[in-house]
Amino acid sequence: MSSVRVHNLAISLDGFGTGADQRLDAPFGHAGMRLMGWFMRTATWKAMQGEPGEPPTPDDAFAGRWGDGIGVEIMGARKFGPPGWHEDADWRGWWGEEPPFHTPVVVLTHHARPPLEVGGTTFHFLEASPDDALAAARDLAPGLDVRLGGGPTTVRAFLEADLVDHLHVVIVPIVLGRGERLWDGLEGLEERFTIAATSTPSGVTHVTFDRRPRV
Amino acid sequence: MSSVRVHNLAISLDGFGTGADQRLDAPFGHAGMRLMGWFMRTATWKAMQGEPGEPPTPDDAFAGRWGDGIGVEIMGARKFGPPGWHEDADWRGWWGEEPPFHTPVVVLTHHARPPLEVGGTTFHFLEASPDDALAAARDLAPGLDVRLGGGPTTVRAFLEADLVDHLHVVIVPIVLGRGERLWDGLEGLEERFTIAATSTPSGVTHVTFDRRPRV
Repeated sequence: MSSVRVHNLAISLDGFGTGADQRLDAPFGHAGMRLMGWFMRTATWKAMQGEPGEPPTPDDAFAGRWGDGIGVEIMGARKFGPPGWHEDADWRGWWGEEPPFHTPVVVLTHHARPPLEVGGTTFHFLEASPDDALAAARDLAPGLDVRLGGGPTTVRAFLEADLVDHLHVVIVPIVLGRGERLWDGLEGLEERFTIAATSTPSGVTHVTFDRRPRV
Repeated sequence: MSSVRVHNLAISLDGFGTGADQRLDAPFGHAGMRLMGWFMRTATWKAMQGEPGEPPTPDDAFAGRWGDGIGVEIMGARKFGPPGWHEDADWRGWWGEEPPFHTPVVVLTHHARPPLEVGGTTFHFLEASPDDALAAARDLAPGLDVRLGGGPTTVRAFLEADLVDHLHVVIVPIVLGRGERLWDGLEGLEERFTIAATSTPSGVTHVTFDRRPRV
């Protein structure tokens, strides 16, 4: 069975994976780009922007793993657009005409619509439980891994359903105070995973969770 | 002016510094000893128990800094005893007849009582604001640093009042789900401090906050 993986999910010290007050002009709410600063300094990000190569850093060693072996992404509605995007028939996502995914993407939403092709990415809109969404994603990319792209509420739902095999969280040393928490309702999560933490010179700490073999 | 320092304050990934349901037989509530495991493996802890020396570890390099230059501790009521300890005139703290402090200790409580000497430690019971408690502590140890001993609610109150110069937090990779949160109400804390994170082979991450010079 292919794996379900989360990569580069940045959270604040107080566990918020996105800020409050997400809007069209503030995709991360009041957090702004503060959770993503470490990522935007990586060669992985710069390559996505078509910028020249950078020497790899420890952060890049983690950041660069987001694509290998991945055949499809699942994302929550709030990653696809600002509140109310489903009322705009022309909304095509935050990413312009060349989204970085280049695979099918399953968008979880209560407002399904026909598939949408943008650049090399096709978005499939689905109202489904985590289990059913995962089955649909696997049908779109047989044998390949599924990336769970966020946001925090979506990742939390899949963790609650025990569907995640690898979780890469990046703790950014800020206190956001408001927004969407990742850890709520996940008491005892550590019992299901082998966990490792790595701080890097940029000041963030990468925490990886790998599912323990089922007995 | 002497410094106010917090050392070895362990928190879960979700930011709880102690568990829920603290009781006489469960000083850390449902967290049990899980937040303290890393500390109990350090030479610092073993020396406090009179156990033979251990080779120092990275964790020990942090743990061992709790005493140098400290002349007094301030602690919250819930560090001194279980709920209702103030109704027991014979309660002398959790630590038996030789508490590890060996300095004056200011206990913040709504139920003041006369000072209590136990071994080489004298506990002073005070109902006071963080500012006033700090002034009282400094009077007890002129020129020496003040350790703010916890728990998380007390540390948070002093951080809110901007009275902390050095904060050492240890992130333990568990999700507690319930208890006392450290970070609540501290949005933007990072603006006042220089922050550094260090993961160690034991799996915890030490995060230090050093107050930036006031302009």
